[in-house]
Amino acid sequence: MNFHWHSQARDGMARAGTLHTAHGAVPTPVFMPVGTAGTVKGMTADGVRSTGASIVLGNTYHLMLRPGAERIARLGGLHRFMDWHGPILTDSGGFQVMSLSALRKMDADGVTFQSHIDGSKHRLTPERSIEIQHLLGSTITMSFDECTPYPATHEQAAHSMRISMRWAGRGRAAFQQRPGYALFGIVQGGVYPDLRAESVAALTDIGFEGYAVGGLAVGEGQQAMFDTLDVTTPLLPKDKPRYLMGVGTPDDIIGAVARGIDMFDCVIPTRSGRMGRAYTSTGTLNLRNARHADDPAPLDADCDCPACQNHSRAYIHHLFKAGEMLGPILLTWHNICYYQRVMARLRAAIIAGNFDQEAAAIRAGWSQA
Amino acid sequence: MNFHWHSQARDGMARAGTLHTAHGAVPTPVFMPVGTAGTVKGMTADGVRSTGASIVLGNTYHLMLRPGAERIARLGGLHRFMDWHGPILTDSGGFQVMSLSALRKMDADGVTFQSHIDGSKHRLTPERSIEIQHLLGSTITMSFDECTPYPATHEQAAHSMRISMRWAGRGRAAFQQRPGYALFGIVQGGVYPDLRAESVAALTDIGFEGYAVGGLAVGEGQQAMFDTLDVTTPLLPKDKPRYLMGVGTPDDIIGAVARGIDMFDCVIPTRSGRMGRAYTSTGTLNLRNARHADDPAPLDADCDCPACQNHSRAYIHHLFKAGEMLGPILLTWHNICYYQRVMARLRAAIIAGNFDQEAAAIRAGWSQA
Repeated sequence: MNFHWHSQARDGMARAGTLHTAHGAVPTPVFMPVGTAGTVKGMTADGVRSTGASIVLGNTYHLMLRPGAERIARLGGLHRFMDWHGPILTDSGGFQVMSLSALRKMDADGVTFQSHIDGSKHRLTPERSIEIQHLLGSTITMSFDECTPYPATHEQAAHSMRISMRWAGRGRAAFQQRPGYALFGIVQGGVYPDLRAESVAALTDIGFEGYAVGGLAVGEGQQAMFDTLDVTTPLLPKDKPRYLMGVGTPDDIIGAVARGIDMFDCVIPTRSGRMGRAYTSTGTLNLRNARHADDPAPLDADCDCPACQNHSRAYIHHLFKAGEMLGPILLTWHNICYYQRVMARLRAAIIAGNFDQEAAAIRAGWSQA
Repeated sequence: MNFHWHSQARDGMARAGTLHTAHGAVPTPVFMPVGTAGTVKGMTADGVRSTGASIVLGNTYHLMLRPGAERIARLGGLHRFMDWHGPILTDSGGFQVMSLSALRKMDADGVTFQSHIDGSKHRLTPERSIEIQHLLGSTITMSFDECTPYPATHEQAAHSMRISMRWAGRGRAAFQQRPGYALFGIVQGGVYPDLRAESVAALTDIGFEGYAVGGLAVGEGQQAMFDTLDVTTPLLPKDKPRYLMGVGTPDDIIGAVARGIDMFDCVIPTRSGRMGRAYTSTGTLNLRNARHADDPAPLDADCDCPACQNHSRAYIHHLFKAGEMLGPILLTWHNICYYQRVMARLRAAIIAGNFDQEAAAIRAGWSQA
């Protein structure tokens, strides 16, 4: 079976469908929990499965440095390593090299950098990034690119995007096609519509199984992000999945689904959970706040996760005050559940043809907390 | 139903039976995971249940300081707070006051101390300790005592033990008997057989639903601990449960079961798990050690916990090297499972009449790692 996205319904620009992959089917729109170093932080794989998540993300940069891609390959690949047998999407390492590593030096061929862990020297090229993702056994491989910083002048954004487009072509050539596996290209171009259009044209010329929109959620703000999507997604092939990288809050996601995006990943639900912040159907809660100390209510009356079914806000507040691991565990679990529930509601609404009403209803709930 | 221990089998001094409590039955010998601050560190209550644990421990000292016993009572008690609906044993706070608090001052009536968390001033007396445990809703309440330090002269140990015996009488008077709930007395007397005998006589004179042996595993060494049990357990009532507080390694537990102990608690499986140490049927493993980096084997081929069923030693090594929460989560889970499995094997062997052979077989396994 070839990797493909099956379209099921459309409501305005919003799309519902199913990704078919070598590791199973993924209903879209979909949120992918982030499993940076081979684990969704604080969760067992069984726990992640219980939230309804159907696909997770892994990070090439982190895994190549520790424990090493060749080691994971010897151990049977990332799926077995982390006990996740559904699809895994891996990023290319480009974004983390720029944001985490030390002494990075970019040239026309790739990036040389020092590990943020031990200072050891490494190099990533389009070909090596693809090779690492092959070693990991990624279901969906991402093209190696430079995530254009924000702000960038038109000239800077054009230069950066054109490098990424050359790298995308080299990655396509290096990618070994197997049934049910995919390589995605990444649209760059900053907030400049003409550069986004040039990037889409370059990528569709090469041809990919899916298209990501990169370089957003890097400081430009929600309106600029939506404006960029408005001029980008209409240019993308209608029969291929579209992935908005690193986005975002539930509100960001609703707005992006409305603009034709199918796939999302973000550390917000997991990182916020570790910090004591819960996303709920009535808005966000800071569980460190003393006002929760005596509250017998669950985090979210509409949620069937273990935190909401078995515990009070008072208990979770206590866990954070006491520095107990179970606090981050329960809030991470809850937040991933909440994100999955939002995605399921959006998908059902697209199929039912009432996306705008459902989006408004979800947003209206947030003012109740 | 009254709280009682039903004897099922005996093999030498070792006993198998069942504790019947207001919150369900507990097969003995039993190991109780420690849930210090209302959580077995790193585990959900569902996770703890999945290990086969039937009873857990809570700490009066920690819970009175944070979140407060009256608060837990308002929230419906410790069982609901931590989502543990089986029996809960709470210690009296005496041990932690002495080991953790600052500026403690003991008098004939109790102990005044400062919280190790915020320096606030508190007082524990035999009556207040019982009251706190009532507020928590403890299934098994422990008498407030002084854990005699080691080493102590005969005179010091006698003085300390006699204070604890007076406090035991005051606690008995303060305890409100309810069906299926219990108050245990604690035998003290250091390593002095005559003082242990005097303590047993004083406690049995008062009368308790169970008897704990306290003041051991405080530095005296395994042989002195076993010697003290040898002169203490034969004096205890044959129809009441016996609890050795704060013990220990699997080897300690096997030796104590052989000497007639029914109940155990210890932070070793949970604390060791957080530090990277696994207890397995082939011995202990330090998962931080680089020799595990490429090992595809499970921690323990005989174990059905999620760590052993779903992951390699290499993965768990990686989690500890990367500082991922899932490392402590998985090793805690495994260690509690291992302890539960040892207890189940010992219990079955007592019933089958081959305790010594089974104990020898368990110990022989440890040399294989």
